[in-house]
Amino acid sequence: MKQAGLLKKIIEAIKDLISEATLDCDENGIHLQAMDSSHVSLVTFYLKSNLFELYRCEKKLSLGINIVSMAKILKCGMNDDTLILEASDPGDLLNFRFESRRGHKVGSFELRLMNLDMERLSIPDTEYSCIIEMACAEFSKVCHDLFTIGDSITIKCGKQGVNFITLGDLGTGNVRLKLGTTVNDNDEDAFAIKINISKSLSLTFSLRYLIYFTKASTLSNTVILYMGEEVPLSKIFINSIHF
Amino acid sequence: MKQAGLLKKIIEAIKDLISEATLDCDENGIHLQAMDSSHVSLVTFYLKSNLFELYRCEKKLSLGINIVSMAKILKCGMNDDTLILEASDPGDLLNFRFESRRGHKVGSFELRLMNLDMERLSIPDTEYSCIIEMACAEFSKVCHDLFTIGDSITIKCGKQGVNFITLGDLGTGNVRLKLGTTVNDNDEDAFAIKINISKSLSLTFSLRYLIYFTKASTLSNTVILYMGEEVPLSKIFINSIHF
Amino acid sequence: MKQAGLLKKIIEAIKDLISEATLDCDENGIHLQAMDSSHVSLVTFYLKSNLFELYRCEKKLSLGINIVSMAKILKCGMNDDTLILEASDPGDLLNFRFESRRGHKVGSFELRLMNLDMERLSIPDTEYSCIIEMACAEFSKVCHDLFTIGDSITIKCGKQGVNFITLGDLGTGNVRLKLGTTVNDNDEDAFAIKINISKSLSLTFSLRYLIYFTKASTLSNTVILYMGEEVPLSKIFINSIHF
Repeated sequence: MKQAGLLKKIIEAIKDLISEATLDCDENGIHLQAMDSSHVSLVTFYLKSNLFELYRCEKKLSLGINIVSMAKILKCGMNDDTLILEASDPGDLLNFRFESRRGHKVGSFELRLMNLDMERLSIPDTEYSCIIEMACAEFSKVCHDLFTIGDSITIKCGKQGVNFITLGDLGTGNVRLKLGTTVNDNDEDAFAIKINISKSLSLTFSLRYLIYFTKASTLSNTVILYMGEEVPLSKIFINSIHF
Repeated sequence: MKQAGLLKKIIEAIKDLISEATLDCDENGIHLQAMDSSHVSLVTFYLKSNLFELYRCEKKLSLGINIVSMAKILKCGMNDDTLILEASDPGDLLNFRFESRRGHKVGSFELRLMNLDMERLSIPDTEYSCIIEMACAEFSKVCHDLFTIGDSITIKCGKQGVNFITLGDLGTGNVRLKLGTTVNDNDEDAFAIKINISKSLSLTFSLRYLIYFTKASTLSNTVILYMGEEVPLSKIFINSIHF
Repeated sequence: MKQAGLLKKIIEAIKDLISEATLDCDENGIHLQAMDSSHVSLVTFYLKSNLFELYRCEKKLSLGINIVSMAKILKCGMNDDTLILEASDPGDLLNFRFESRRGHKVGSFELRLMNLDMERLSIPDTEYSCIIEMACAEFSKVCHDLFTIGDSITIKCGKQGVNFITLGDLGTGNVRLKLGTTVNDNDEDAFAIKINISKSLSLTFSLRYLIYFTKASTLSNTVILYMGEEVPLSKIFINSIHF
């Protein structure tokens, strides 16, 4: 991996939400899927093999990881260090090797693996009646602002814009983002919010979890919210990074 | 109000000192007067109607405010948002509406009002034998430095300068600011301290309260201390901002 | 003393490790030697008289100092203030006088002295089989990184480089610094590590104490580790500053 910083950012983003997870490795890449301890939210990420300078996986391997410990080890590397991950089968260790740009420093760390019984959930493809795209920073600010007032947030989506509404002891809060307004004259791509909607809807979420999700803002500039009334769990995707 | 940031700064400056207060609104502006919960200090501020781009108050209205809640709502706005405050009579809500510069975002917040029994104190005009003007930053540093040593501060004012004195378990501290010294060659207005004195005096204050007062340093560059022996309570004014 | 900031940095660096110490003053300078409260580490520093613009000491004087209180007083000065230290014999006070550059402000502080029974240890001159020189920042990062994994650190020194090794519940960490690699092309003096070795060795230390020592990184760019197997206590010197 050319940049140790990327994996560090990913693990930092999820470590407050999930403490343990399985890294499923096959010849195509590394897949992680985990629910938080209260089974409210589901985290998945997929590091494709072409994200790595060199990727080799001879047989499928599932590595049970303590995410907090992995975050500690990743902090020991510099962001622009080259990172080499190694595990053998059978084996109970995942090796991290950080090589500095200048070649003067090599950090080798071994992380003890855990035996985790994790069932991989298969998520049915669903149609979402409302898809919202906005800047991560804006989404993060709205969630943090409203969290000072209430515990839950109602996202009300119509063709002209989106309202984020909360209710608390001190009063109420309602932030409206209008469709199609450019927020930055110099940048043609800058927009307040993009909406792809087939039916207006209004859904309520726990703000605490949304704030966990906003930690992934370090990974992307925009967030896409997929919402549908008929599905048990609405999805919120932080945009993936493409190389 | 053109700049939501101003009201935010004011409320931030007082929220650690007073938790509840009444905003008295009439056709000339908004007046706040409140004592802290220990009845040691008195906070007043006056937002004149011309500070607002548009100000309308058809009848006198007293709004009982939870200052901490109001600070939370004000934090939800950006400093350069336009802020619209609205209350109706009868009514138990104060509405805050933040409109972003670009027009893409509108935040509407309702703050529940409280019934507060507040008597408005009338403060007799008094003559102060000693008036000191100095930079807020310098006053703040002196108070914070001496607070690491003792709990109270004696301000001793003479024609040549001012001494700030404290006494604690570890020893003593005495900071002297000399009259008439320029602290910055490039700026003719830069001065260490200005003193207007009719009689030397020495007064002792609780440092904890002075440190609360220094939070208003965000509002002004200079602070004026009005001190008089004969008055029960010496006044410390943070300079008002003029528009 | 021309720069109050220097003494502030020194005291800040040691105040978490030792709470009380004796300043031994004679005509040549001020000497401090103190063990931490667990008697694991020994701190010494020596301020030579030529470090001061003016230095006068008519008879030997030992001043028992509460280091935490002294740190509080030193924080009351600005880094570029002139600092005048005064003590008389007999006397139970150490006076600090900070004079601002512009002359507008004088801070006078008195620190109460303590009666401390301190024996001055004489440290025998020893030969060290391994002397390592490296950047303070690098040493500090290695110690902090490994402290997230384990409590102790093994420093293993050979002719080709140095390994810093730790072991914890989550796994192991091993950071290797290679000899002779330049870390910065523009600066000829920049190097990863310099080693002066007569015999390979491997010694284990408490990371907690090494991290206390790294607080002295504000005083110097490089650290020199003196290690020898036969000596009960290996020395770690943070490079002294020369004027």
